[in-house]
Amino acid sequence: MDADSLSLLTQRLRAFAAEREWDAFHSPKNLAMALTGEAGELAAEFQWLTELESRALDPERMRRVQEEAADVLLYLVRLADKLQFDLLEAADRKIELNARRYPADRVRGSAKKYDEYKEPGGA
Amino acid sequence: MDADSLSLLTQRLRAFAAEREWDAFHSPKNLAMALTGEAGELAAEFQWLTELESRALDPERMRRVQEEAADVLLYLVRLADKLQFDLLEAADRKIELNARRYPADRVRGSAKKYDEYKEPGGA
Amino acid sequence: MDADSLSLLTQRLRAFAAEREWDAFHSPKNLAMALTGEAGELAAEFQWLTELESRALDPERMRRVQEEAADVLLYLVRLADKLQFDLLEAADRKIELNARRYPADRVRGSAKKYDEYKEPGGA
Amino acid sequence: MDADSLSLLTQRLRAFAAEREWDAFHSPKNLAMALTGEAGELAAEFQWLTELESRALDPERMRRVQEEAADVLLYLVRLADKLQFDLLEAADRKIELNARRYPADRVRGSAKKYDEYKEPGGA
Repeated sequence: MDADSLSLLTQRLRAFAAEREWDAFHSPKNLAMALTGEAGELAAEFQWLTELESRALDPERMRRVQEEAADVLLYLVRLADKLQFDLLEAADRKIELNARRYPADRVRGSAKKYDEYKEPGGA
Repeated sequence: MDADSLSLLTQRLRAFAAEREWDAFHSPKNLAMALTGEAGELAAEFQWLTELESRALDPERMRRVQEEAADVLLYLVRLADKLQFDLLEAADRKIELNARRYPADRVRGSAKKYDEYKEPGGA
Repeated sequence: MDADSLSLLTQRLRAFAAEREWDAFHSPKNLAMALTGEAGELAAEFQWLTELESRALDPERMRRVQEEAADVLLYLVRLADKLQFDLLEAADRKIELNARRYPADRVRGSAKKYDEYKEPGGA
Repeated sequence: MDADSLSLLTQRLRAFAAEREWDAFHSPKNLAMALTGEAGELAAEFQWLTELESRALDPERMRRVQEEAADVLLYLVRLADKLQFDLLEAADRKIELNARRYPADRVRGSAKKYDEYKEPGGA
């Protein structure tokens, strides 16, 4: 099994930036800032939809959502590359941490507790 | 090659939410909103650092940055799962789109053009 | 009419930063970044609520929402001060622009058009 | 002296939404979400600038920054109106809270402490 597909993505983005001489712009600070902009664009796609509508997007909005989600991922991968950490390992560690914080048998079906934890995505 | 590590992550998060009966909260709208919150926390780690400082984080901040970056990834993976699209395919499509938009020989070394494009991360 | 209450707020924040020698940190770039962090914290208060629930907050959440909203305003006022523009004048111009863009008799009661405009807040 | 200019702004936005029958869209949840989108657009204007560059914007970018800052303010005012709290009073309370948290003689000139507090804007 290969390390992971994110490694390939990391390599492609590294080459992409190098070919364009964009590394000078890609400080972690700037990348984190750019990521918030893309996250904001992603949120904007949903802001006037009801939750129900958000579960069944029309094709045009679905296309835009995928593009914005991709933008977030690309900056995230680039940030991890610049700071030299493994994004998937970080995600694994966070899931384990969340599993300890929110034991299934204690939080199940509890909206109140859910909200207290504030990280119901396992995030 | 296996599908990809993000598939495994998708599976784990799906089980995590199911065990806690959190699916009702995970509308795409809510997930996108939660993602902006995590992106904001990630940005907050860098907000008072210089760009230079952001390239060499102390261990404690590095730990927090990895945790916040993981949070963003987890919500992103969960959003893609709920909307049933492949995050890596979306990222590949976006890179190809960016390659056409910002041909390397036209944008190289140009801060001005870089900024006009506004998506120098290849994003 | 007096200049406005935002002028007083601007003065207070200017003194607050000066007394603490924080001006070096308050570049417009950093302030804009800090603002996204606070906006993310504000959003986080609502992320798992239904729209209906968000219209009737319990006292504890209401307190936090007011505090996060205040944080956003403080950074916004500070940013405008650093860049030397009048926030209220900018808001007035934007409302006039929106009034031309979204004539009431054309957009009334139209969710679809509303969404296309994407700026239904008059923003 | 009138209460404050934000009251006038509140009234104008209330009329603006009513004329367009947009109130149904303006749940606090949706407004908070829209605000993050605008905060992200504001941040995007600064993301590739150095801090120094961000202190001296060219006229075209300055125009866009003012427009995005106005958008943030408009949604913030609208949110406070919908939740029926006074934005300026909330800001005053927050400044007083910050003054107690970060006594000038203790935090002066301390980048480290500044960062620990994480809210150097007085926010």
